[in-house]
Formats: sequence, C-alpha cells, structure tokens
Amino acid sequence: MSGPAPGWQRRGFNVAAMRTEAKRALPRAIFDFVDGGAGDEVTLRRNESDFDALSLLPRPLNGAAERDMSITLFGQKLSMPLMVAPTGLAGLLWPDGEAASARAAAAAGTAYCLSHGSVCTLEALAGTGVTPRWMQTYIYKDRELTREIAERAAAAGYEALVVTIDTQIVGNRERDIRNGFLIPPRLSAGEVARMAFKLPWLWRMRREIPRITFGNYKRAGEAEDLTALAERMLTLPDPGMTWRDIEWLRGIWPGALLLKGVLHPDEAAAAVANGVDGMLVSNHGGRQLDGAASAIEALPGVVEAVDGRAKILLDGGIRRGTHVIKALALGADCCLTGRPQFWGLAVAGEAGVAHVLETFRREIDLAMGLSGLAKIGDIGPDILLRQS
Amino acid sequence: MSGPAPGWQRRGFNVAAMRTEAKRALPRAIFDFVDGGAGDEVTLRRNESDFDALSLLPRPLNGAAERDMSITLFGQKLSMPLMVAPTGLAGLLWPDGEAASARAAAAAGTAYCLSHGSVCTLEALAGTGVTPRWMQTYIYKDRELTREIAERAAAAGYEALVVTIDTQIVGNRERDIRNGFLIPPRLSAGEVARMAFKLPWLWRMRREIPRITFGNYKRAGEAEDLTALAERMLTLPDPGMTWRDIEWLRGIWPGALLLKGVLHPDEAAAAVANGVDGMLVSNHGGRQLDGAASAIEALPGVVEAVDGRAKILLDGGIRRGTHVIKALALGADCCLTGRPQFWGLAVAGEAGVAHVLETFRREIDLAMGLSGLAKIGDIGPDILLRQS
Amino acid sequence: MSGPAPGWQRRGFNVAAMRTEAKRALPRAIFDFVDGGAGDEVTLRRNESDFDALSLLPRPLNGAAERDMSITLFGQKLSMPLMVAPTGLAGLLWPDGEAASARAAAAAGTAYCLSHGSVCTLEALAGTGVTPRWMQTYIYKDRELTREIAERAAAAGYEALVVTIDTQIVGNRERDIRNGFLIPPRLSAGEVARMAFKLPWLWRMRREIPRITFGNYKRAGEAEDLTALAERMLTLPDPGMTWRDIEWLRGIWPGALLLKGVLHPDEAAAAVANGVDGMLVSNHGGRQLDGAASAIEALPGVVEAVDGRAKILLDGGIRRGTHVIKALALGADCCLTGRPQFWGLAVAGEAGVAHVLETFRREIDLAMGLSGLAKIGDIGPDILLRQS
Amino acid sequence: MSGPAPGWQRRGFNVAAMRTEAKRALPRAIFDFVDGGAGDEVTLRRNESDFDALSLLPRPLNGAAERDMSITLFGQKLSMPLMVAPTGLAGLLWPDGEAASARAAAAAGTAYCLSHGSVCTLEALAGTGVTPRWMQTYIYKDRELTREIAERAAAAGYEALVVTIDTQIVGNRERDIRNGFLIPPRLSAGEVARMAFKLPWLWRMRREIPRITFGNYKRAGEAEDLTALAERMLTLPDPGMTWRDIEWLRGIWPGALLLKGVLHPDEAAAAVANGVDGMLVSNHGGRQLDGAASAIEALPGVVEAVDGRAKILLDGGIRRGTHVIKALALGADCCLTGRPQFWGLAVAGEAGVAHVLETFRREIDLAMGLSGLAKIGDIGPDILLRQS
Repeated sequence: MSGPAPGWQRRGFNVAAMRTEAKRALPRAIFDFVDGGAGDEVTLRRNESDFDALSLLPRPLNGAAERDMSITLFGQKLSMPLMVAPTGLAGLLWPDGEAASARAAAAAGTAYCLSHGSVCTLEALAGTGVTPRWMQTYIYKDRELTREIAERAAAAGYEALVVTIDTQIVGNRERDIRNGFLIPPRLSAGEVARMAFKLPWLWRMRREIPRITFGNYKRAGEAEDLTALAERMLTLPDPGMTWRDIEWLRGIWPGALLLKGVLHPDEAAAAVANGVDGMLVSNHGGRQLDGAASAIEALPGVVEAVDGRAKILLDGGIRRGTHVIKALALGADCCLTGRPQFWGLAVAGEAGVAHVLETFRREIDLAMGLSGLAKIGDIGPDILLRQS
Repeated sequence: MSGPAPGWQRRGFNVAAMRTEAKRALPRAIFDFVDGGAGDEVTLRRNESDFDALSLLPRPLNGAAERDMSITLFGQKLSMPLMVAPTGLAGLLWPDGEAASARAAAAAGTAYCLSHGSVCTLEALAGTGVTPRWMQTYIYKDRELTREIAERAAAAGYEALVVTIDTQIVGNRERDIRNGFLIPPRLSAGEVARMAFKLPWLWRMRREIPRITFGNYKRAGEAEDLTALAERMLTLPDPGMTWRDIEWLRGIWPGALLLKGVLHPDEAAAAVANGVDGMLVSNHGGRQLDGAASAIEALPGVVEAVDGRAKILLDGGIRRGTHVIKALALGADCCLTGRPQFWGLAVAGEAGVAHVLETFRREIDLAMGLSGLAKIGDIGPDILLRQS
Repeated sequence: MSGPAPGWQRRGFNVAAMRTEAKRALPRAIFDFVDGGAGDEVTLRRNESDFDALSLLPRPLNGAAERDMSITLFGQKLSMPLMVAPTGLAGLLWPDGEAASARAAAAAGTAYCLSHGSVCTLEALAGTGVTPRWMQTYIYKDRELTREIAERAAAAGYEALVVTIDTQIVGNRERDIRNGFLIPPRLSAGEVARMAFKLPWLWRMRREIPRITFGNYKRAGEAEDLTALAERMLTLPDPGMTWRDIEWLRGIWPGALLLKGVLHPDEAAAAVANGVDGMLVSNHGGRQLDGAASAIEALPGVVEAVDGRAKILLDGGIRRGTHVIKALALGADCCLTGRPQFWGLAVAGEAGVAHVLETFRREIDLAMGLSGLAKIGDIGPDILLRQS
Repeated sequence: MSGPAPGWQRRGFNVAAMRTEAKRALPRAIFDFVDGGAGDEVTLRRNESDFDALSLLPRPLNGAAERDMSITLFGQKLSMPLMVAPTGLAGLLWPDGEAASARAAAAAGTAYCLSHGSVCTLEALAGTGVTPRWMQTYIYKDRELTREIAERAAAAGYEALVVTIDTQIVGNRERDIRNGFLIPPRLSAGEVARMAFKLPWLWRMRREIPRITFGNYKRAGEAEDLTALAERMLTLPDPGMTWRDIEWLRGIWPGALLLKGVLHPDEAAAAVANGVDGMLVSNHGGRQLDGAASAIEALPGVVEAVDGRAKILLDGGIRRGTHVIKALALGADCCLTGRPQFWGLAVAGEAGVAHVLETFRREIDLAMGLSGLAKIGDIGPDILLRQS
C-alpha cells in the first residue's frame, strides 16, 4: 500500500502530468505548500509563461547526430545542464526524501543541492556518499550559526555553498495561511477524514509525520518542541545581512560560493566584486516577493552585468527541455529544477525524481537534436527570434 | 448580532479576501455602490492590472534589518506611505463610519481624509480629535458655499484641503442605475426579503438607514427632504471651474492645498503654477471617466511635469504592499486607499479598517525587507525592470 | 401587442444593454444578420476592443460649464459629432424602419444616411421631409443604373452622396449562411414555432414580411419575384470600379461626395486627388474583409495622408461617447453609428433610435464635461496618453 | 453506410467547420494524431493566432473585376497560391486516401506533394497520372535508401523533391502518447465499443485497418511485421545530416529541390548557397519542436535572407483565404495546406478535399476582390498596416 500508485509512469509522461499525479498523491495542504507562491502568484505564473514569449529558430542541417549535453561546473562534470534545486522539507513528501532525491540526481549524473531546511541532517545526507553535493544556507542573525553550518558542510564534503539571499523574511504564502499549514504536520480527525484518498501517503509517512522537522537545527541530546523549532527557523535569517557578510563567508568557505536570489543587475555586479563564483537568478519560485521579475525576464540584465566573470544559473519556471535551451540561449550556464523534482518525489520517491530528470534529459536531447545543436557550446542568442 | 461575522480576521488575510467578506456583509446595491466603476469599467480594471506590468528587482544584500516606512508630508509624519482616501457615505457601511475609519487611521499613525460627502459633519469628525485630518471638497457653483466649507474646515482644524476636480459632473455608474441605488436607502419589502443573509448589517444600521444623508449640507434647524438633498448634492459642483478658482481658494485656505483627479501632465504643471502644494493622481477609482488613463499609467507623465515642485500622491488600484512600492518607484510621494478601507469598514467597523491598514503595513514592510530597502528614500526607478 | 416590450427604456440604459434588448426582440436569424461579421469576426471584435488601448487624459480645470458638441459638416450644422450610418433593410426590423430612424435622427439634430438597400424607396424617405439626409450608393456594373440612382437622389434633395467601395462583392457572413437568412424572410412552420418569444415582432411585421425587399430597385409596374431581386442586388456592384468612376461621378453629383470603406492611406490620398469631399474610414462593420484593420487602427494613417484636404468620418465600433471623443482626438471630424441605431430601431422603432442617440449625446457631453472640453475644437491628440 | 455523413457540405461551410466534421467522423486517437502538436502545443496555436496580428489595408478602387490567382512555380502553373502539403498516412483516413487527395488537387489545378509516409507507394500514386506531383523525403541514415527513394521518385515522374529537415527525430506528440496511437491501428474490444459513433469510418476502413503501413518502405515479396515497420520508420532519418547531404542530393535529383522545415535566416541563406530551388517555412505544423517560431513569425527573416534567390513557401496555420494573402504580402510565393486537406479527406474523401480547396479558392478570390488585387503580383507589404 505504501508504494507509488500503479501506472504513474505511463500517466506521468511529462512534467505537468507529474504535477497532476503529485496533486492526487499528497494531502491538499502539503501539495499547496509545494505548489503555491506568494501573494497573488503573479511572479509564480510569469516564471513559466514568460518562456512562451521566446521563439526558437532551429538549424537542423547543422547536423547533430549525437548530442552531448554535459557541462562542467566548478570543475565537476554534469551529465546535463540541469541540477536539483534546494527545496526544504523533502522528507515531508517521502520517507527519507532528501536522500531519495540525491540518489536520483547522482544516478542521473547531475548535482543535488541540499536545502538548509532538510528533514535529514546534512551529515546524514553526506553519509549516503552521493556526489556532486551542494549545500544551501543563509546569513543568520547569529553569525556563529552561519559559520557553524558552513563548517559542518565543509567537514561533510559539500562542494559548493549556496547562500540564499531572498528569504531573509518569509514571504506571504497565502495558500499556507488558508490551509493552516504547520511543521510538524498536525492532523485533526477532520483532516484525516478528508485524507481518505491520500491513504498511501498517510500509511507511508505514518512514522515520520510527528517527527518531521528541520534536522540541521535540532539540538543534539536536547528535548525540543518541534513546532517551536519550526517557528524559530523562520526568524533565524538576517534581513540586515550586507556584502560584508558575503565577503566574510568567502573567507571561511573553501569551495565554490554562490548567491541564490539575484535579480538586479547591480546585485549581480556586486556579487562578482565580492568574490562569488556564481549566482542563481531566482525569485524563490515566486514564493517570496510577488511582483518580482520572472527569472527568465531578469536573466539578460544579470548576464550583461556579470559579463562572464561568474557562473549564472537559472532557477524558476523550468518545466520543459526547451525552457533549459532558452535559458542557455540567453546566457545561463545551467538551470535548476525545484518543484518538478518534488512532484517526482511525491509520486514515487527516488524513482519519481529519476523519472522527472529523465524526462528533462529526453526533452533537452530532443530539442538539441531538432535544432542542430550537438553540444551546449552551440547554444547562443542566435537561436532565438529577435522580437521586433 | 450586530457585530462582525465570526472569523473575519482569519478569512480576511489579504485585501482581496476582505472584499469577499464585504460582499457577504453588505446588501448588493450598497456593495455595488462601493465596488463599481463608470461605464464598461475599463479604467477600474486597469487601475489594478496595470501594476502587474511592472517587475520589481530586489537587492536584498543592501541590507534592511530594520525598515522605516515613515514619511513626512506637509510637515506631518505618517507611519507609512499610505493614507485613507476620501470616500463618501462611510456612514452607510457602519454606524458612525467616518469616525470609525478616522480612529483606525489615527491609531495606525496615518492621515484620514474626510469626504465632503460624509454622513457625519466635518465638525463632528473634528470633535473626535483624530489627527492628521484632511478635508476633501469641490469648487461649487455657489462660490460662497465653497468658501464656507473651506472656512468650516479651517475652523475645525483640518490640516489640508483636497479639491476634487474630476467629479464636477457625476459619472455614469451603471451598477447603481441597474440597482436603483438611492440615498437615503429605500428598502421595499422585496429588498428586505432578499437581505435575509445581510441581517447583521440591517440590524446594525436599523436606526441610521432612514437618516443617512450628506451631513455637511444639511441645513441646521430646517426640515429637509433627504432624498431631495441627495439629488441637490449632485448638482452642486461646477463644471465651469477654472484655474482662477484654484488661485482664489489658494488665497483663502491657509494649509496645504491639493488637487484630486490630476492625470494630464499639462494639468499637473498648471497646478504647480497656481500654487498648489500637492496633487492626487487619480481617476476617482474608475468611477468617473471610463477610458481615462489608469493612475499608475498616468503617474510618470505627471512626475515629469511636476519635477519635484509639489507632492504627488497616487490614488487608484492599490491592493497590495508591492503596489505602493511600485508607485513610489515611479515617483509618487504617498498613496491612498479608498475601497479597501471601505471593505474593512463594512466587515468590522474600526477594527476592520485597522486590519486593512495593518495588512498593507505588513506587506509594505515585507516587500521593503525582501528588496533591501531600509527607508522610503531608498525607493527609486532603479528597482523596476525597464521593459524593452 | 405590437408595441415595444415594457420597461425597455429602463433596461436599455446603455448601448450594449440595447443590444441585449434587441436580441430578445428579434428572430435569431435577423438579429444575427444585424450583429454578425465576416469570417472569424476578428475585425468585428477589434473595431470595438481597439478603443480600449487608448487612454484619455482629462483636464477638468480647463473649465467646461457648458459644452457645445455641435459640428458643421459640408455646410450643415449637426447637433453632435455622430450621425446615422447607412444600414440596409431597416424596414425588416420595424415597420417603415427607414423613416422611423430618419425621423429620430432629424429630431436629434443630426444627419441620416439612407442605405441603397433600404426597404422604402429613396423618394419615399425624401417625402417625409427629414433633413439632413444623405444617400449611400455603389458603382454598379451598369453605369446607367449608377447615374440613375445619383440623379434620383439629387432630384429628391439628398445633400450628400456616399459611395461604398468595400462591398463590391458580398463578404462571407457565416452567421447568415448557418441561419439560412433570406430576403424576403421565409418562415417555415418550425421557424415560426421557435419564434414563440418573438411574437411582438412577428405581429408587428405580419404584413411587411412577405413584401420586404430592396425598394430602390423594384421595377415600377412590374411583377417581380422578390427573392430573385434580392439575389440580383448582390451582383449589381462592380468590383472592376476604378478612380475613373469616381471622377465621373464627381462630375455628375452636385453635392458633397464621400467614399465609404477607406482604410489604406494611399486610397485616402487618391480620394482627395479625385475630388471627393470626404471619406468614411470603415471596414463595413467587420462584415466584409475579415482581417482588415479596425477603423480606429486605420484612422491615423488616413488622417496623415489626407492632411486636412477632406472630411474624415469614422464608422465602426462606436459604442460609447468616449469612443467618439477618442476618434476625434485622432483626427476624425465626425463618427457614424450603425448597429446601435439598428438595436434601438428593433427595440422600439423611432423612440428606440432616439433613445440610442440620446444615450450617445449624454455620454459625449459627460465625457467632454469631465475632460474640460467645452467644444469640439478643443479635442486634439494631446488628450490621449502616448503609449511608450 | 460508408459514404460521408449527409449534409456535410452544408455544415462544412468553412475550414474550421470541416475540422468539427472530421472530429465527428474519426476515432479519437486518429483525430488527435492529425490534430495534435508537440509538447504544450504553443507553436501549434501560434501558427494560427499569429495571423491575427496582421491587419489588411484594402484598396478596392484599384479595381479587380476579374481576379487571377494563378502562379507559376518551377515552370508549372498552379491555379492558386495554395497546394497540398505532404501529410503521412492519408490512407488511414479514407480508403486509398493519397490518391483521393491527389485527384482533388489535380482537379483544382494545384500541386499535390506525396508524403514519404504514405500508405500507398509512390509508384501507385504516380500510376493515377495526377499532376503536378511532388515527392517528400528525408535524409536517411542509410544514404542508399535516400538515393533509392529519390531515384524511384524521378523514375515515377515526380517533378519536385521536398526534403524534410525538421523531423530527423520524432517530436513528442503527447496526444498520441496519451491515446496509445499505433500503426497499424489496434482496436481492442473497448475501443471498438467507444467507436459506436464512428461506425461509418470503421465500416469504410474495415479491410484497410490491419494492413495500414508506410507503403514506400514495405519490402516487396517479404513478410514483415507491420508494427515493427512502423517503429523502424521512426529511426530511419538521420539527425546527423549536414549540408553535404543536401549538396549530394542536389547532384542526384534532376528536378526542383526544396527543403521543408526552414525557420532560421542562416539556414535559409545556406540553403540558397547549397543550390536548393526553394524552401518551405514550416515547423511541421507544430508537431516537432514546441517553442519554435510560428511559420508566419519566421517568414520575414527568411524572406530577407533569401532575397529572391529561391522560392519561399509557407506551411503552417493556413485556415483562411486571408491567411494566404497575408503570407504572400510578407514575401511567400505560395502556401501549403496540411491539416485542412486531411479534414476534408476524413469527412468525404476526394470530394471533401475538393470542397476544402474550393473553400480556400473562394476565400482568396473574395479577399483579392475586396482588396483591389487583380493578380498575385499586386500583393505586397504595402497591403499590411505597419504596427507601431
């Protein structure tokens, strides 16, 4: 009973179809936690729809019998220009969800970025040996905590540190407000009743539910009210962070350092000046500042400001292989996938994430083949129709 | 029974949700009177939707641990760049509605502008002692009446006078025509029957209904047909007003003088030349000239024409904290909220208005924090993506 | 039973509402004949919706206590910048429909243009004495017929001749094809049954129906199959007409000569070169070439090409007083109303047309008053927001 | 019972209506195979809707009593600027579907292009004697097969060879995935039951269904699993094809050589440099690379790059006569119709295709007549409104 719904692979033939499967599998409040955005969800919708304004111009006779979509990022080879974005609470969707996703990413030859808000600890994930493995963190009000997380990540062999700069205050996720979403999930009798059709998830997670929390922040050997921990989590990041903190972290962290949440060209230029190795053009999947520019809309300004001095990754709205191609055409070096990975996880655990990554790979390969693009280096602005 | 519907605070978690609550609370004709616009309501819809075309570019690493959203307007400190717009007949929505709204505004540290079309008199509101307190008026055909209102406002200690210039003739509000909306409200047996679900409003307002009128124009010690007064009201303003009248009023009125309803850059420049201290870029909430430019669409032209020589306030379509931020980025000094304040009033009186203002404050604070904006002076055109 | 539906004036409070009333009053096939356009009705819809892209910038303090919306057109004074467009088969909607409409126009102080495809003869209409009275015609394959109609119109005292140039072949009006629309209308038993709710129209028209035809082309003293006449009508105009025909007609016709159906700037310039006095920017209400430019979209090019050397009238999509204002702002001298006039006629005959014209007048007056426009000459391109 | 549904001609009064008829006639999976596109079908929809952004400016007084829409293409006269596009598996829609379509095209005086994926063999079609007759093919991995097809086509008297370059890998047609579409069609008991309303098709095709395959690739005198053949078909084309292959084919093929699937201006210029005589601006009807430019959107760039050195045909989204006119105005020499021809075929076989071609002819003639265009050479960019 706790396995995936039979036939999910057949029904989940594209990413949007996997979302529908995930909607069937998850309790409403948890699906909405994954799916929702901030405010009126304008930015959430634009993250996806703004890709449609870009028209591809294929050149099939350039010849692309074999396509090589591998890239090299900070010295590591990725089998495709798409990696797994940090997404909190994976363990809420599937038992030991973080490890399940990371294993799928490693098997697919791409990188997995652990969220600071994981249910498992960063050491536990490192124990699985999956690689490449990145760690996402924040600038906390408590700089010692900031240092501690970075040092724990370094000790555990994480290769890159991603500092999220757009969630120093939690955005107004109104679906969560409406649903009364809480960590750990609380299930009233009524909610359990409404879950009649979500029994596989309930059965699968029956032991995890009361213990789900933010693993990295649970104090060892100490009894803690998990709900209080969840509330405390939200207040840890420091909206008063400045470039000095980035400079300081740069001094502490030995590996690749990236910022996540860059949209403004000036912020991108300052990031380079402060020694970061890369940045994620992102609006946190439309979950933070509604009304912010969509990721693909903000990309050209960031690319121009960075001018090749750092790696640029795009995170937000990627639902098709052609979206990856379009982002690379506008200057991104790699893309990340957040929600689609979660949909896969919710539907079938590791196999589901593998299925989603494979879907993307198949679509990217198809789009490259149809466009006469034999390798990632062939992708440039000239494959897009200039709008008049 | 006459209190707010239980749970309104939980359900009314944003401004749009408060509108839904207000729709439930009010008789249809009264809700439509508040909600509707002129003609095909094109301008009404654009007032809101035109904000979506502007994309924010946050710079979180500018650091905004503490945000100060206070502004100084005509020597008065407001706790946020949003004040209450003049809106007629507040007393129709809640007993003593004007005072309820004004108290909520004062408690929130912002200004309240009384409509000339208030149910209470301007002196009665002044008696509550709330401050800052502005008065809205017209250029009437009867210039003595014009002078009289201004002198009464000065005597009652109003700090600013707002002259509405866009309602010299009443717009075609077709919802009101369809609904047969009248002042005082007339309730036929059929209408009372249809009000089965609006009983709290009916009970709450049972004594006020037959006496609701435009308080400022009721002649003391004189019997008057209230319906006749309401009809007379509509014909008082003078469509023949000219800049000479503004010049003249400028000579009479000692405090800050503002025009409400400026959209044309030439009108804005002329306003400065005629000595006004500020102006409200407004189309009367889409209630007057349908097809007029939306407030946010007209703002840049006005800002350019005024060139810093007067204060510019934006009134129209503000439903989110980010809308305020966007208006300020385009050059506004402050914004006003009309309908949202009314929705709050209709739902829970003073507490409802306070709730709406608090919602705006929370959203503005969040948007500033997420965007790295520590104070209002940090908000400029560079936080918006330039459309190509 | 044959009078208008009770309450029509109250329900028909704007032009769109009159359309709804007309839909209730008329048999479906006849309503669709009036309402429908060619092909996919893209041009039909754009005629209306393209007005929404123009934003008005009022300047109320210019002062407009009294508004004078009268214009002078070819030496005749019209009480407003809107006249009645030629629309065929008015007599199908109401007994003696042409005269009813013309009387309403005359009473409103504006001009009526008789369609060549009227049910009454042009002489019969002239007999009513209404004025100003224009006549619309075609260049027929039979040039003698062309001359004959022009001479009959001159003899009957028509003041202007409008030559329609866009209906030399009948457009594909697919609603008519679907409905099997025929002249005279043929009513099968089934159709009469479906007309249960249209009984007032049926009763009112019971004597006219079998005799409805194109009056101007019925041969005196000769038995004619009316259906054959209707079919013959469609083949009379000459798609081979050229500027020589216009030149020739110019020599014959003593009064003002106008072309109807001008969209191309080159056509407009050629019209001036060939001596016409004016032109109607029109796509025949979207009934001819679907995909053609909307009237308001084509207007600026025509205005630029004509450069003041002829009068420019706009016909198409006018549903609001503000539409007239916007057309005049872009350079039109006058507008025409076709379908709205027909809706009025279908609802209440002469009183209905009068009601529609009065609705337009009220809306134009309101828009002028709110915009600070005291006279038509005050309307220029500066009242529109320039789109960036 | 196997004839067309009675009344189809009356109901199918335009191309969209023929689609509705086809939807009624065909089993869902087969209708979707014809109707569907790749991925999210963005390109599919834009192929049609992008025509609406172009506005026609007619000039009726240029005079077009008689219209001649004939063109000369590679020395052959076509009666209209529209020919039949290659569309695979016509024999699935109607018995001997390829010959039925080709006969209809020949009767209409226009060219028919046989798909390589026809059910009948190219020799069988040649045996019918219809002309002009073009052959569509691919660059196969097996260059001998490529040569063989070209030589068979030359031997059978095909006048032009169209090399499709955009289907070297099959696109993700998700409707087919959902429907489990297979060749030959497999009908389970359940599917037959659901076909209750498609009985005429079932009866008509009862003998063909089990034998439907790609005729040109069936090995003579050899037993073959037809399903295996269908699967093999999909892997024959070579995504590694290059301009050398075009150069080589140019040396082999004596007649006109065209590329199908050109969107990029650089590809168009290279095609000219490699000696092709023409090209089809096409995205395979939105069936291959979703997100690719629409045909009409890509056309101007191709026209500019080719600069008159080769013929340019537009394929994609043509549903109206005015679409043909708009494509020619932007520089196309001819258009092709794919799906509409299939809808006609599905509805009534040869008579249905004839009906569709006649509908297009009537609409093109009407549009030319209404626009004052007497011949194809009169169509230029000046008949379109330039968007500002």
